[in-house]
Amino acid sequence: MNNQENRIITLTTDFGLCDWFVGTMKGVILSIAPQSTIVDINHNIPQGDIKVAAFSLLSSFRYFPENTIHVVVVDPGVGSKRKAIVVKTKRYWFVAPNNGVLSYALNIDEIVDIWQIENDQLTLKRTGNTFHGRDVFAPIAAYIAIGIEPTQIGKKLKGLVKIRLPVPEISENKIDGEIIYIDHFGNAITNIPFKKESDFLGCTVIAGNRIIGKVHNFYAAVDKGMPLAVPGSTGFVELAVRDGDISKKYNLKIGTKVELLKTNC
Amino acid sequence: MNNQENRIITLTTDFGLCDWFVGTMKGVILSIAPQSTIVDINHNIPQGDIKVAAFSLLSSFRYFPENTIHVVVVDPGVGSKRKAIVVKTKRYWFVAPNNGVLSYALNIDEIVDIWQIENDQLTLKRTGNTFHGRDVFAPIAAYIAIGIEPTQIGKKLKGLVKIRLPVPEISENKIDGEIIYIDHFGNAITNIPFKKESDFLGCTVIAGNRIIGKVHNFYAAVDKGMPLAVPGSTGFVELAVRDGDISKKYNLKIGTKVELLKTNC
Amino acid sequence: MNNQENRIITLTTDFGLCDWFVGTMKGVILSIAPQSTIVDINHNIPQGDIKVAAFSLLSSFRYFPENTIHVVVVDPGVGSKRKAIVVKTKRYWFVAPNNGVLSYALNIDEIVDIWQIENDQLTLKRTGNTFHGRDVFAPIAAYIAIGIEPTQIGKKLKGLVKIRLPVPEISENKIDGEIIYIDHFGNAITNIPFKKESDFLGCTVIAGNRIIGKVHNFYAAVDKGMPLAVPGSTGFVELAVRDGDISKKYNLKIGTKVELLKTNC
Repeated sequence: MNNQENRIITLTTDFGLCDWFVGTMKGVILSIAPQSTIVDINHNIPQGDIKVAAFSLLSSFRYFPENTIHVVVVDPGVGSKRKAIVVKTKRYWFVAPNNGVLSYALNIDEIVDIWQIENDQLTLKRTGNTFHGRDVFAPIAAYIAIGIEPTQIGKKLKGLVKIRLPVPEISENKIDGEIIYIDHFGNAITNIPFKKESDFLGCTVIAGNRIIGKVHNFYAAVDKGMPLAVPGSTGFVELAVRDGDISKKYNLKIGTKVELLKTNC
Repeated sequence: MNNQENRIITLTTDFGLCDWFVGTMKGVILSIAPQSTIVDINHNIPQGDIKVAAFSLLSSFRYFPENTIHVVVVDPGVGSKRKAIVVKTKRYWFVAPNNGVLSYALNIDEIVDIWQIENDQLTLKRTGNTFHGRDVFAPIAAYIAIGIEPTQIGKKLKGLVKIRLPVPEISENKIDGEIIYIDHFGNAITNIPFKKESDFLGCTVIAGNRIIGKVHNFYAAVDKGMPLAVPGSTGFVELAVRDGDISKKYNLKIGTKVELLKTNC
Repeated sequence: MNNQENRIITLTTDFGLCDWFVGTMKGVILSIAPQSTIVDINHNIPQGDIKVAAFSLLSSFRYFPENTIHVVVVDPGVGSKRKAIVVKTKRYWFVAPNNGVLSYALNIDEIVDIWQIENDQLTLKRTGNTFHGRDVFAPIAAYIAIGIEPTQIGKKLKGLVKIRLPVPEISENKIDGEIIYIDHFGNAITNIPFKKESDFLGCTVIAGNRIIGKVHNFYAAVDKGMPLAVPGSTGFVELAVRDGDISKKYNLKIGTKVELLKTNC
């Protein structure tokens, strides 16, 4: 690998954008790998929320070029005995704490190797034990970007801490799922997957014991302010209000139960 | 055009910064046009607010180098029959839904050609019909960045959907305008244009039937906490409170009527 | 210096991310210095808060490569007689208003030269006097990035406007300090510095007359929801609640008094 190659490093964190944290990580990366292109995926993961971070990564990582280095720093155990890891998959590299945050992505991208981050020569002399995004994850990602031999990072690991996406119950007449993410617009993403856009067209969706409406192809299929379901951009059925916020309107939250009735469609 | 050229692509959306949406668009762009430089102009356009997006673009697009590709995804009709378009002007390229969001910018930059986005070979295999930012606008912008022949995008269009900035009424003694934008500081931008900074110096400004104060050259011309008007950075008269938030203090909103009295200046 | 060199320009402002302000500065920079890499450090400095901006810069600037150009636009006096300056230090360049915002950083990086920004040939023809970020600071930073002779910027200055970090009172039994920053997580950074992580391990910390807890090495040393102090990532002792928000829980603010008792550790 050529050191001057323009490698992409993505960042997913719960650092927010109100402090210098993300910018400082970029300074560290550019000090080691000046040719890298750094892309922010999401810095507004709720504090320490590993599931939300895992879903955000799942929904985004595949859209980057091969060999992209995805860094995820949602790390409530920072400084404790939890391990920091590097995972090489068929298509990508991942750098993260070993707390399950990579689980959803690694379900669909084959793991090639896992290393534990151990080599203090590659990380920054630490100031405190609270900002491993700057002191550990950023420099390791940068060294990968410039083509370090991964055996220098640390010893290989076999297992990983895992979390699981809740699986919907599929019966003949309905699918029982739940809400797994609320986005910026208030749209509520369920764990009910679709294969073709037409899979559930016209089916009725119930959330929190309230009839939401039917599955349509796009938001503008209903009048403004009206609720509906659509095949969403993540491959899961999504609940929305046209030009509105369904999570506020119907008090939907992560975990709210959702039923998709297959009888009338 | 050289494929390796470092073209700039700007993004203006209502996607917010709390999800993976913007980052994912960047992944798509960099997969096709790895040498492009992507610049965020504004991702906090209120949901579906075409006027605010058009004004944000108007206030920023001219400050970019020639040949910059401006992508605007404020698209309440996503997935419906509204068209997606590419506009080549004398100085720039624009990629957006055909819903008027480019209107203000295109008033001051001459249109050379308009194409309708039709070629499914250039866009992503769609997952759902809700995220054309990722599936349509990002890849088309990237292909333009690497110099695709625009005839490959789709057929040429003549007309465009248009919206208009409200025009102030200018009489001998006063100008009747309105507020068209409230910024992060709470400053209220009116639709009253000035040519020279000195145009309205000392004139009294009234907003929502309340005397705000006089036009000064800069904020620090009045005491802290005091209201004033200034020739703003967008070329329009702007209402402000020094070191404060005039929109909160006087409950100013987009649409609030503003009078600029020319009798005493 | 080579014009094609990939120089880094960082941005610290109070412009927020809800308008086109930051993106427009980047358009101006890339128009002059197309090869520069622009990094956002922080755009959410409270309006006009020079102390917070100075601390944000202090906590981040050292992590960037030598010759990085740090631009700080927190500028309540914009358009008035306050001067705009360029400071060359041993390792970096700084571009900012002369209002003290560089003080904390310049305490630890030796000043080589200071110039006053005077040359109107290098700045944009101004539209209003409210957005020098776009019209003055962005182009000057870009010209420095492409290697302009700094004597072209304006005449040399001797003195600078300065502000000071409050200094803690150190006695035999305790250190009296105060809170100087609240971060995105609600963690409260004090002005009590440490040299080694072990310096105050086990010491009791009091804030706002309430016992917070002891100094630990990392957040996960206490149970979830419990308060503690840690050696923070900025080199100062920091108060936190594990997986929580100590500033809300105990109503801590910038300026709240903090005591670190050395008697029991």
